[in-house]
Amino acid sequence: MDIGSFFIFLAACVPSAATGALFPPGAWYRRLRKPRWTPPDRVFPVVWTTLYLLMAAAAARASGFRGAETGLALWALQMTFNTLWTPVFFGLHRMALALGVLAVLWVAVAATTLAFFQVDRWAAGMFLPYFAWVSFSLALNVAVVRLNPGPHRQAAEADCGAPNG
Amino acid sequence: MDIGSFFIFLAACVPSAATGALFPPGAWYRRLRKPRWTPPDRVFPVVWTTLYLLMAAAAARASGFRGAETGLALWALQMTFNTLWTPVFFGLHRMALALGVLAVLWVAVAATTLAFFQVDRWAAGMFLPYFAWVSFSLALNVAVVRLNPGPHRQAAEADCGAPNG
Repeated sequence: MDIGSFFIFLAACVPSAATGALFPPGAWYRRLRKPRWTPPDRVFPVVWTTLYLLMAAAAARASGFRGAETGLALWALQMTFNTLWTPVFFGLHRMALALGVLAVLWVAVAATTLAFFQVDRWAAGMFLPYFAWVSFSLALNVAVVRLNPGPHRQAAEADCGAPNG
Repeated sequence: MDIGSFFIFLAACVPSAATGALFPPGAWYRRLRKPRWTPPDRVFPVVWTTLYLLMAAAAARASGFRGAETGLALWALQMTFNTLWTPVFFGLHRMALALGVLAVLWVAVAATTLAFFQVDRWAAGMFLPYFAWVSFSLALNVAVVRLNPGPHRQAAEADCGAPNG
């Protein structure tokens, strides 16, 4: 595994991590109805830090093998959709659109895992916890959309400034 | 150039393009003082569509050469920072932070161009218009920050719902 590549891929995770701080769950999120199995807020940064390290390590490792190009293209694809989700959900409060973003992310993560598997089993293995978490996130987003029908854009606007914190 | 890779890289540009529609310039942006050389709003979607096509073509072409891994890692890095800029500037109205994001993007685009140059001159050449536009955007963001000193977070909050459109 090339250490230089590892840090470039890790830096590519920074925008996604930054959205978690820039668009935090505010009053709007606290008021939403959520399933009982929703993890507490403090769990997310810990999980995501672990996943970013694994994602960067997987990509850096795959890079060392011939034929990794498709996997690396898919890695970029999944990372940009990952970066988009938080501004759509916590910034715009558009839960259904965020669910669409997450569905594409889920497919992209699955495709990346499969592409990595074709060049190196370890790289694919390091993507499995991420795939599991995105699957869980997808179930959570579906549940939140179902539990909160109606015009949530208005709820977002009533917050007035909540997207800033 | 592999057509499959081209479309994966193009799909990786979709979140960045989507932020342009999701976080459009609203009343807040119209009220900002801007330099005379600010392009009209309608220019940006045209320029960006062209640049996304070139960026995807550059990455797909570079993918076909051995030793492209570092360039592809840098491509992912620049694309995630690209995706972050619009939610920070037009969503949060945090112009100075957006300038920081854009500065990192500028360095990442320069680094990607250089890395592509080491494997294929055409791939690097297709990145040059993007590098030129990001340089221009950086100058524009610097000018807007200078022309609008003071607490713009309050201006954002006074808009009340403007981040949604």
